[in-house]
Amino acid sequence: MAKTGAKAKAKSTADRKFTLGIDFGTESARALVVDVATGEEVATAVYQYPSGVISDRLPDGGPELPAHDWALQDPQDYLRALEATVPACLKKAGAKAREVIGVATDFTACTMLPVKKDGTPLCSLKPFRAEPHAWVKLWKHHAAQPEADRINDTARRMNEPWLARYGGRISSEWFFPKALQILDEAPKVYAAADRLIEGADWIIWQLTGQETRNLCTAGYKAIWSKADGFPRREFLGALHPDFADVVDAKMSRNVIPLGSRAGGLTAAMARRLGLAPGTAVAAGNVDAHVAVPACTVTGPGKMVMIMGTSICHMVCGTAERIVPGQCGVVADGILPGLYGFEAGQSAVGDIFAWFVRTSVPAAYEAEAKKRRKSVHDLLAEKAAAYSPGQTGLLALDWWNGNRSVLVDANLTGLVLGMHLGTRPEEMYRALLEATALGTYKIIRTFAEHGVTVDEIYCCGGLPERNDLLMQIYSDVTGRPLKIARSAQTCALGSAMHAAVAAGRAAGGYDTIQEAAAAMAGVRDKTYRPDPAAHAVYEKLFAEYDALHDYFGRGTNDVMKRLKAIAGHSA
Amino acid sequence: MAKTGAKAKAKSTADRKFTLGIDFGTESARALVVDVATGEEVATAVYQYPSGVISDRLPDGGPELPAHDWALQDPQDYLRALEATVPACLKKAGAKAREVIGVATDFTACTMLPVKKDGTPLCSLKPFRAEPHAWVKLWKHHAAQPEADRINDTARRMNEPWLARYGGRISSEWFFPKALQILDEAPKVYAAADRLIEGADWIIWQLTGQETRNLCTAGYKAIWSKADGFPRREFLGALHPDFADVVDAKMSRNVIPLGSRAGGLTAAMARRLGLAPGTAVAAGNVDAHVAVPACTVTGPGKMVMIMGTSICHMVCGTAERIVPGQCGVVADGILPGLYGFEAGQSAVGDIFAWFVRTSVPAAYEAEAKKRRKSVHDLLAEKAAAYSPGQTGLLALDWWNGNRSVLVDANLTGLVLGMHLGTRPEEMYRALLEATALGTYKIIRTFAEHGVTVDEIYCCGGLPERNDLLMQIYSDVTGRPLKIARSAQTCALGSAMHAAVAAGRAAGGYDTIQEAAAAMAGVRDKTYRPDPAAHAVYEKLFAEYDALHDYFGRGTNDVMKRLKAIAGHSA
Repeated sequence: MAKTGAKAKAKSTADRKFTLGIDFGTESARALVVDVATGEEVATAVYQYPSGVISDRLPDGGPELPAHDWALQDPQDYLRALEATVPACLKKAGAKAREVIGVATDFTACTMLPVKKDGTPLCSLKPFRAEPHAWVKLWKHHAAQPEADRINDTARRMNEPWLARYGGRISSEWFFPKALQILDEAPKVYAAADRLIEGADWIIWQLTGQETRNLCTAGYKAIWSKADGFPRREFLGALHPDFADVVDAKMSRNVIPLGSRAGGLTAAMARRLGLAPGTAVAAGNVDAHVAVPACTVTGPGKMVMIMGTSICHMVCGTAERIVPGQCGVVADGILPGLYGFEAGQSAVGDIFAWFVRTSVPAAYEAEAKKRRKSVHDLLAEKAAAYSPGQTGLLALDWWNGNRSVLVDANLTGLVLGMHLGTRPEEMYRALLEATALGTYKIIRTFAEHGVTVDEIYCCGGLPERNDLLMQIYSDVTGRPLKIARSAQTCALGSAMHAAVAAGRAAGGYDTIQEAAAAMAGVRDKTYRPDPAAHAVYEKLFAEYDALHDYFGRGTNDVMKRLKAIAGHSA
Repeated sequence: MAKTGAKAKAKSTADRKFTLGIDFGTESARALVVDVATGEEVATAVYQYPSGVISDRLPDGGPELPAHDWALQDPQDYLRALEATVPACLKKAGAKAREVIGVATDFTACTMLPVKKDGTPLCSLKPFRAEPHAWVKLWKHHAAQPEADRINDTARRMNEPWLARYGGRISSEWFFPKALQILDEAPKVYAAADRLIEGADWIIWQLTGQETRNLCTAGYKAIWSKADGFPRREFLGALHPDFADVVDAKMSRNVIPLGSRAGGLTAAMARRLGLAPGTAVAAGNVDAHVAVPACTVTGPGKMVMIMGTSICHMVCGTAERIVPGQCGVVADGILPGLYGFEAGQSAVGDIFAWFVRTSVPAAYEAEAKKRRKSVHDLLAEKAAAYSPGQTGLLALDWWNGNRSVLVDANLTGLVLGMHLGTRPEEMYRALLEATALGTYKIIRTFAEHGVTVDEIYCCGGLPERNDLLMQIYSDVTGRPLKIARSAQTCALGSAMHAAVAAGRAAGGYDTIQEAAAAMAGVRDKTYRPDPAAHAVYEKLFAEYDALHDYFGRGTNDVMKRLKAIAGHSA
């Protein structure tokens, strides 16, 4: 970073071209000014949303939210974030407005809201302030489960061809369940909404003054495909008579590709942000998906894992494949010209955090404190002293159910092999290994269905911190593993898409491949699989796989029965 | 106790009759003076063995013990214990020698030693001081596993009829594996030994001057039965040519019943202990087995559980039955006239201690300290707030393998059902429940094979401390559960047998039933099964049982394969 920084400074100021990437996360937004020629991250600024995640009461008060699985946001927070971060980081970067050739954003998804035809959110209008359904439904709003169930049942019954593309199950987090929940529970809000739109697209509308729909959220969250478009009218009508025309009445069939120019910055917005009017603004995009080229990945065979509380796995292929448990396959959904596959593990870092929170004795906490280490680091240090298989333990990483490949939220965690001498660091190691075995299961399933994974690229919070974990993932999967150079992979990915939206003529790039070659990078250290370790892990994988199928595919549904009993006992 | 104490004092001193029970444990011995008429525990004294458990180096130094699974003792410690405890507690009791009508002992078993024909332990002779095999092999000496394997393989091959009586497997802890190990590894010690004898019988020899062999250790530890005697010469010879005559050359076929008079106290020993010469001394006995009548149990259908680090289950029946996984069935082995069945769980309190040691966060330890509770008590308090099934967790209690009913030391522990909100007290409760489900499996297996268990009686360290645990055992098994009144059930049981050895004419009793009626008792509180809780636990038991069979009966030997991999990796 220091090196590229020096290089950038050596240039004449007249040469400098920047793009701005803005990453809209769950609790905050981050803006990043990037040097288009070098990828140098010149300046950044973060803004915490004042309303954060709204899960109990709306900002103006009003009634308590109806169920504990609600998660809303205030769209004004997104605009405040733009105003707070963009001018601040332009100033830090010392960048002039004319030097910024493009702006791009990425967003959590599906995060959607009802708006009027000029883009005004319903919740910003007085009559709807106290109506929960008028607000933004955040990705982790889970209250549309009954609607998701109805969509899945109906799709199975009507044999809808798209269901297989989404692992056989549409998530309650996605677009149509959320839209249908509005219609079911607040028909007046539904009727008053001229448009139902992803936050990813709404923010672009605010920047450009034009409504657009990006291919990524349309494909992964709204069951759209280049070949077949959206689900057919008959299917949508079968869900609810008033839902038959939702696409034509409240959405748009005009889906634009990733990296394309959605429009130019409006004069008003340019003024508010300190940018030049007409600056290229890229099509909306999703946080996980923009990270792929930011890890240098622009072709097939290379899996990108965004590793944090959970893992999102993304890989591109040259043909459409139906892979069990995939979250979705979308043509051009990650990179143009390729089929983008997405899979996931619903808890990874969350499991390690659970263990540290609930299962580490006082003596370990005291030792960590004394040695000024985190408990995670202490456990990793102790766990690193064990060789693969030495603990005799094996776990199933299902603390939050299993997304891929089983698509079953009702599965739970398992550890076996404990004896009276088993130590906390062994349990910790078994949990690290279990999540790696879960990823290996996903990779093998992709491979068995024609989607090759030769290398792994990682970004997110976990790879930054846990060297042992990275080596275990490499040893378990038997594949080399690289880590993105940037710690803000999403914002960098957006900045890269901004450079593509600007185009070569304006000083950017014509393709995301060119942008990645110039702007993205990986760290020097590559984790390489140790063949002896991998051989042991192949044996452990065989055991993991047998338990995976026994508990996960219906031979013994004990986990579900226990959950049902617990539900009645609580 | 105060009440019976007052009653005892009200009597004229002329009436008083006491017996002395001495419990030889693993680390110490305890003597107890008991009022024969009331069962009042008048005085007690404890003595820690100076040499304790010898597992690395013999007391006089010499070479390191050859393997980590050795566990020896010094027989002189037993004599020192007699001298230290008996006079002290007689004095505390204010008991005159002539008021003590009988002495009885109980011992760990199989704890055995090689001796000369006058009873002198080989290890007490100079030439053998540095020879590990000349010392007492304590019950938990596990280095005779190869000999146990040979005995089991040979017995299976030769179709020996007794194998089924011992759950199909002779333990490495028992008499013949230990004797055979001496022959295998120290043939000179074997040759020099005139007798191989249980500590339980050796101590009686020291008290009475006569060698006897008690029925309990002969039956449960040395494969003896009233009907068939010891294993046949051909079998023993097949193990090792020089082992063919072990019974006639170094043991005795003269097996005496429990509670019988083994002899009278020698003059020399009477002088050393402050007792009257000729005082009745009962046949040797085993700690767990004497506890049965001390819990008031003197008939069939009532299971006694000695609950501590592990559980020993004992129940009597009216006919010999072959019950899978039983540790042994011995006619008259616990109570005269009944078949005594023994089963066991190899880790119970040990699992809870493991959890407290390895898996409880600092915040809990701090709360326990602040509230002046043990961590166990704190966890139990929090766990008690959950209803059966509410945790959604299920565990297999195999942290130290499974004794009954699977008889497999290579099984390991399992917990499933964890989610991101699972709390330490839920894990703790799941472990309590798992051990109760393990006991229920044993009870059901007994019942399925014709040995009824209608009630449960508990003694040992655990029932003293853990109210929640007792209620869970009652709810899980669906049976009322009582707890012995005495905290020294073993020593009390010995004192009761001493009263029987003395006989009614001397102021004692003619039967153990009479002794139990007068001297034993249970606490006022009976734990009764809650029908609703039991109904939920029946469901959990069905799940436990399915996992038990899947992992324990060869459908999926993952636990053993992981152990094997761990062995190679270590």
